[in-house]
Amino acid sequence: MELIIGPRLYSTWSLRPWLVLKRCGADFTVREIDIYSPDGRAEMAGLSPSGLVPLLRVDGETIWDSLAISVWCAERYPQARLWPTDPHARWLARSATCEMHGGFTALRTHCGMGPDHTMVGPDRCPPPTGEGLDRDLRRMVSLWTEMRVRFGADGPYLFGEWSIADAFFTPVATRFRHFQIDLADYGDDGTAAAYRDALLAQPDFLEWSKEALR
Amino acid sequence: MELIIGPRLYSTWSLRPWLVLKRCGADFTVREIDIYSPDGRAEMAGLSPSGLVPLLRVDGETIWDSLAISVWCAERYPQARLWPTDPHARWLARSATCEMHGGFTALRTHCGMGPDHTMVGPDRCPPPTGEGLDRDLRRMVSLWTEMRVRFGADGPYLFGEWSIADAFFTPVATRFRHFQIDLADYGDDGTAAAYRDALLAQPDFLEWSKEALR
Repeated sequence: MELIIGPRLYSTWSLRPWLVLKRCGADFTVREIDIYSPDGRAEMAGLSPSGLVPLLRVDGETIWDSLAISVWCAERYPQARLWPTDPHARWLARSATCEMHGGFTALRTHCGMGPDHTMVGPDRCPPPTGEGLDRDLRRMVSLWTEMRVRFGADGPYLFGEWSIADAFFTPVATRFRHFQIDLADYGDDGTAAAYRDALLAQPDFLEWSKEALR
Repeated sequence: MELIIGPRLYSTWSLRPWLVLKRCGADFTVREIDIYSPDGRAEMAGLSPSGLVPLLRVDGETIWDSLAISVWCAERYPQARLWPTDPHARWLARSATCEMHGGFTALRTHCGMGPDHTMVGPDRCPPPTGEGLDRDLRRMVSLWTEMRVRFGADGPYLFGEWSIADAFFTPVATRFRHFQIDLADYGDDGTAAAYRDALLAQPDFLEWSKEALR
């Protein structure tokens, strides 16, 4: 099994299924492709049906999209409990994950990651501004706070124990850190900031960070 | 159980879970909200955590996002076989669905639906142009063709029998029809056009169309 990813420093979509596969204890190799170089683009053209990373090559198949790969993991590794076992928590974990997968466009645009804005490392930038960003930040704080208050009793993650939702929000935590966004400015009473810090301290994410900076 | 949707004429995100719920034979009511009117926005504010449609209210919970609602249906109604039973087909059905959920931004932007561009009815527009649209259209033709050739033996839909993937691509078929896009211009040998026509002739979609035009 091989996971094909973009640059560890800033490929937010790649980080997500990598975290999920680590959580499963899956035996997998990683191929990192510099998707912005001509060589990398040529390599991708032969690999990726959508032209995008991440990809999972397994059982003779190429599965694409970070969420589809994560759901494949949930099917293949039920013992990893990648979705909450409580039904209501599970339904909303999927809602939150899907909202992140398809939405928060202003946040992803105005707090974009790339060679100059990396998920790891000491560099920091001033908070950006942009159309819709304020609304996205308030929505993120409100979503995180509501889920933590309702479902967070059994651990520091969004639904208590770690789930696919946390994989999807870890890149958001790195954006908040890199762009020095004070969540209190967007209605946080400290709950969202504590969740952000839990994501940034999660051991698998620290391993990814270390490899990215090597 | 209540599904809260935007205007049937053009809310592409609302059509998807409605098609899925119909496929399940679910007993549900529909509340259509004119999300662009002041009254509709006020009504939404009290209902929707994300501020977006669609929403499913069930078992005292509000589930949001078209994909999360569809996945809830797959869990609640296993007999509806909303994902293909063949494992490889199922993995790729999820990849295709997730790619539609999070991607094809140029297609969604330049072939956007709204009060002046509706999914149903006789009005047609000239094909639009725009950055990235050509690439999205070629990718759609290639994706549809590859899946139909590999998995389409048992029926006219993307993976043979109808699945959640078809719910996600039905609005695309309406965009192709409304904007008079000739798929042959984007590499289609007729396979993608035949799939588009199968989606537009699907009985549940025809029922939606009739209600939208009432």
